[in-house]
Amino acid sequence: MENHDHTNLIQKLLACVAACENCATACLNEDDVKPMVRCISLDRDCADLCSQAARLLERKSEIAHQYLLLCEEICRMCAEECGMHGHDHCQICADACRQCAEACHMHHERINQD
Amino acid sequence: MENHDHTNLIQKLLACVAACENCATACLNEDDVKPMVRCISLDRDCADLCSQAARLLERKSEIAHQYLLLCEEICRMCAEECGMHGHDHCQICADACRQCAEACHMHHERINQD
Amino acid sequence: MENHDHTNLIQKLLACVAACENCATACLNEDDVKPMVRCISLDRDCADLCSQAARLLERKSEIAHQYLLLCEEICRMCAEECGMHGHDHCQICADACRQCAEACHMHHERINQD
Amino acid sequence: MENHDHTNLIQKLLACVAACENCATACLNEDDVKPMVRCISLDRDCADLCSQAARLLERKSEIAHQYLLLCEEICRMCAEECGMHGHDHCQICADACRQCAEACHMHHERINQD
Repeated sequence: MENHDHTNLIQKLLACVAACENCATACLNEDDVKPMVRCISLDRDCADLCSQAARLLERKSEIAHQYLLLCEEICRMCAEECGMHGHDHCQICADACRQCAEACHMHHERINQD
Repeated sequence: MENHDHTNLIQKLLACVAACENCATACLNEDDVKPMVRCISLDRDCADLCSQAARLLERKSEIAHQYLLLCEEICRMCAEECGMHGHDHCQICADACRQCAEACHMHHERINQD
Repeated sequence: MENHDHTNLIQKLLACVAACENCATACLNEDDVKPMVRCISLDRDCADLCSQAARLLERKSEIAHQYLLLCEEICRMCAEECGMHGHDHCQICADACRQCAEACHMHHERINQD
Repeated sequence: MENHDHTNLIQKLLACVAACENCATACLNEDDVKPMVRCISLDRDCADLCSQAARLLERKSEIAHQYLLLCEEICRMCAEECGMHGHDHCQICADACRQCAEACHMHHERINQD
């Protein structure tokens, strides 16, 4: 793994994990859960992948870069779904997912320029 | 970690993970999700803890035994909640959780006798 | 996610996790650890990714298929590294990784034919 | 779960994960790996448990409090081991583990007073 500083990227990944975990639990506590089902499912997956991505970066794993491509993908999917719901926790989660997807994307742009 | 064979215990832990993941997704797909909310939450936690427990055993971790005490606890909580719902996936999950809790319990009985 | 049965694939993934966890710990206990360093690192990553992949399949995640592509990649890397070492735990791990990579590969072949 | 703010505790847990992942990889890259073996093993376990603990808090899990007791235990074990090695990454990790153990401990003190 190259020697760039990943502090900002890791921060975005962990903020995304927190937002997804919070959103999943808050969705389950909504009066009408049914419309939130896909949101809950994507929150679970997104939290799992972003948490793993942060750890791969922290341990300087050989597979970290490739993992971040997949991470960007699930973040975009989760941002799109959460963005369709008006709940505060969904909007906050959509924003965290978008910022994380963007940070993953910029990470790859930077690497490709090296 | 002592030198007992943990094959059966690991098998029960991983069967419990699979049953919990399956139950959580199936609960989310039920027509009436609201009564399943605690079931989904406990399924998530139970799958996470049993998966981690299996890996601690597989890597012969010093903390494995203590971890299994907590694992037994979440399995009993999840078994009790799932057991209250009539859905097949809940009954299957309750059974897997009970078997796993029992395997964790017997593991500690055996160690205390050593 | 399509409706194929993933029992065999999940079994290969979990066998790979167990082999990698066992190999990492056994490598750390070798008299000469230095030559095993990359093996230990890849074992860690491979165990993490295969464990996550099994859970995504068990929960019928939308991202499971894409995840398996990455899983195949880390399994091939880990199999190649472990395969270069003569220790039993490395050879067993290399074999589990190869079988898992193959199962991931066949999963995608099958999906592309659908 | 009670309604205390867990921001500081989660921050300590995630700082501990980062320090443990970094320390494990740095230990593997030391010229003399052999004396670092237990450090690497405890780093792995400590990173896994602290990462899981943060997520249980973020999702307001019923099992979070009990989990933090175990988390405190592994943090103390890891801090003690890392503290015996002179490498910067070990000293930094020992400090992060101690701060995390302390935050877990204060969390329980606060709950018992409620």
